[in-house]
Amino acid sequence: MDRIQINKVKEFDGKTVTVAGFVHEVRDLKSMQFLVLRDTTGDLQVTVFKNKDCEPLNKIVSSITIQSSIVIKGKVHIDSFVKLGGVEILPESIDIVGAAASPLPIDMTAVTESGRDIRLDWRFLDLRDKKRQMIFKVQTTAEMAMREFWVQNGFIEIHSPKLVPNPSESGAELFELDYFGGKAYLAQSPQTYKQMAIASGFEKVFEIGPVFRANKSSTNRHDTEFTSVDCEFAWIDSVEEVMAFEEKWIHHFLTQVKEKHGDQIKELFDREVIVPSLPFPRITMTEAKAIIKSLKYEVPAETKGDLDPTAERLLGKYIQEKHGHPFVFVTEFPVSIRPFYHMFAKDKKSTLSFDLLWNGLEVTTGAQREHRYKVVIEQAIGKGLIPKTALDKQGNVVESKIPEGLKSYLDCFNYGCPPHGGFGFGLSRMLMNILGYENVREVTYIYRGVDRIHP
Amino acid sequence: MDRIQINKVKEFDGKTVTVAGFVHEVRDLKSMQFLVLRDTTGDLQVTVFKNKDCEPLNKIVSSITIQSSIVIKGKVHIDSFVKLGGVEILPESIDIVGAAASPLPIDMTAVTESGRDIRLDWRFLDLRDKKRQMIFKVQTTAEMAMREFWVQNGFIEIHSPKLVPNPSESGAELFELDYFGGKAYLAQSPQTYKQMAIASGFEKVFEIGPVFRANKSSTNRHDTEFTSVDCEFAWIDSVEEVMAFEEKWIHHFLTQVKEKHGDQIKELFDREVIVPSLPFPRITMTEAKAIIKSLKYEVPAETKGDLDPTAERLLGKYIQEKHGHPFVFVTEFPVSIRPFYHMFAKDKKSTLSFDLLWNGLEVTTGAQREHRYKVVIEQAIGKGLIPKTALDKQGNVVESKIPEGLKSYLDCFNYGCPPHGGFGFGLSRMLMNILGYENVREVTYIYRGVDRIHP
Repeated sequence: MDRIQINKVKEFDGKTVTVAGFVHEVRDLKSMQFLVLRDTTGDLQVTVFKNKDCEPLNKIVSSITIQSSIVIKGKVHIDSFVKLGGVEILPESIDIVGAAASPLPIDMTAVTESGRDIRLDWRFLDLRDKKRQMIFKVQTTAEMAMREFWVQNGFIEIHSPKLVPNPSESGAELFELDYFGGKAYLAQSPQTYKQMAIASGFEKVFEIGPVFRANKSSTNRHDTEFTSVDCEFAWIDSVEEVMAFEEKWIHHFLTQVKEKHGDQIKELFDREVIVPSLPFPRITMTEAKAIIKSLKYEVPAETKGDLDPTAERLLGKYIQEKHGHPFVFVTEFPVSIRPFYHMFAKDKKSTLSFDLLWNGLEVTTGAQREHRYKVVIEQAIGKGLIPKTALDKQGNVVESKIPEGLKSYLDCFNYGCPPHGGFGFGLSRMLMNILGYENVREVTYIYRGVDRIHP
Repeated sequence: MDRIQINKVKEFDGKTVTVAGFVHEVRDLKSMQFLVLRDTTGDLQVTVFKNKDCEPLNKIVSSITIQSSIVIKGKVHIDSFVKLGGVEILPESIDIVGAAASPLPIDMTAVTESGRDIRLDWRFLDLRDKKRQMIFKVQTTAEMAMREFWVQNGFIEIHSPKLVPNPSESGAELFELDYFGGKAYLAQSPQTYKQMAIASGFEKVFEIGPVFRANKSSTNRHDTEFTSVDCEFAWIDSVEEVMAFEEKWIHHFLTQVKEKHGDQIKELFDREVIVPSLPFPRITMTEAKAIIKSLKYEVPAETKGDLDPTAERLLGKYIQEKHGHPFVFVTEFPVSIRPFYHMFAKDKKSTLSFDLLWNGLEVTTGAQREHRYKVVIEQAIGKGLIPKTALDKQGNVVESKIPEGLKSYLDCFNYGCPPHGGFGFGLSRMLMNILGYENVREVTYIYRGVDRIHP
């Protein structure tokens, strides 16, 4: 269809063009009819006079229901009196190509917006809102910039399997399914398979794809399916290289988000997109705890040495005030709260791993991984995942003692796996941070949670 | 790590550099030791003399097992006598960072390659082969170029849910799972959700993501999880617009694949990357059948009016000979073999849909969709998916008669859905076509099929 997008209409003053979109508003006055037409680029006033010549058009306008999709051919008229962008279109023809039933099942006017639950039931109507469309425009730009940065740095894109033979993480919160008489699980993370790609000699890999958690919580932050952003790369000397890469990568995509959408985000959300300076501040877990303590907050004992969301928020605020920076890497997490495959520091108490907080919200866990076969087995024994007998008295691996579920993952380290590290990054938390949303349900295209598998 | 990739080593003649990779070959001769070091960019000869000074290095080399990962610091020496690219490195230090167990579980020399099944069991070793790495480099470049083309044309990226409340297609070949006491299914296609994005006013959307089919067949072409490449766009006047977009999109990504990898594909696979001329040939189903008939092939009756793989191959060959073109759009598929949501032609016998064949292999099904609520319901009634009573005598929809499983999909057409169309594209079939593989198992990173859920 040879149509003009609404943000370009102004360039066609006096010319006849075709525009198309949803009818956002209809005002049928005594001597005039007005429509507000909306496409993904903006709103446009459509003006129809009431007179003999316009009678057929007047009839059509009178029959139009809100949210119908229509195609208009008409003359563009620049007029500074028109509140909506100083331009209007005077139709020659109006074609109702998709009539909307009336009334609408949800209230779509900004002032009296329906509740979230009914909005999510009717997500396709909910998403016709400009702010909500902006979420997915930002997502598109950010992901494209992420991939661009990876590809420019020689990364290979992988699509790891989501049907997996074993639980990828703790074993809890797993979706299980029948697989031709056997069992399969839905991947909770691409961790195993991105490390397998490193063992395959891919050197640098990335993946953006779905992961699944059979999560019973129903908070602002919980979902059962989300998009995980992951990368992993070989031939590193330290976890510092992983952090140095991530901060440049974030700097790159935030620069592009600001360039492409900064003005509109300001207009719609009243928020600035902050492109952070490099390098980001780094503090150790010990330093983080001292700061939290100095702020008179006591982290609950259940976290077992980790930070809880409140501590993270306080820390983020502290770093913002002290260093004027929205990001902070927290490093040297204790062994007790990290998985066995993170590389342990020489003291075997802390790990070569980190979290990244953005405005006090955790958006990344990253680490150098342990790539040495015997060492990773020793660490798995330490976590109680493998029986002690898997290492004999001489420190040699007894393969028959390795549990079936870990075997093919650990095999990767037995045939020349290079040193490597990587991180996972939360796409929905990024969107919440950029646009100021508090609930993951708002920034997910079609949300899935314990209480929602529809639509 | 401050290393040089092997394809850059030649630029450092006489200088000391660090290189890293897998040991692909060791030759321990009387007066010399040779290693072949491989990284993702190429192979490099490592030369160690046997003399007093080199004794510590000689010891290390003697201890190195094939496929270990090592880091070498040494002097680059250009020498036209060196068969492997006319350059070698003379090490000062050799560091075995990941020792490989010996013997290897599969034969990794090209001449005596292990059988496919055992290779797939040890996929991470199998993938260290240059040809197999090239598969995923081509995949990376192609996908990046696809997305670039979409984004340049104003498309929004979506991640549609893979946990779905209803079967997306026929209801057969579905993976089912327990969802907190209820049922959920794994998405067989993003069709429903990309059309929902159109109803959301996204106008143009794309997605590259996994889909799932509980497929019991174990042929060269069958898998249970694969990467689907999808797009959908609104405000079209005809299915021709969908085909015109797809051929430009294919032209764009094949141009980039040829530019970036054409020479190496020639070298490794002895194949030319063909960038097809525009427009692609188009023939109707009626014409296609006449051609098949003239070639004396009879399509088996089971296809119910569709083409079978043999007919597609013959047709591809015919078009190649007649028009010198590797692609052909076959249009006007009969209503009987297309789903209810494809737009029917005025005669209600054929649909505004197409398949795209590439070297006689079907890589796309596309269509203009039916976006009018009553018409799509009428078509679903015609297919027996909805009871006749869902339309009353006046032709009005009786919502209570619409099956629960179709309701939220059909709702999308009741509130002003614009005209739209789109297509799905097979990533693995693309790779098979470009590189000449016959089996989907070879071009999938980690293959999943009825008989394979490992590794």
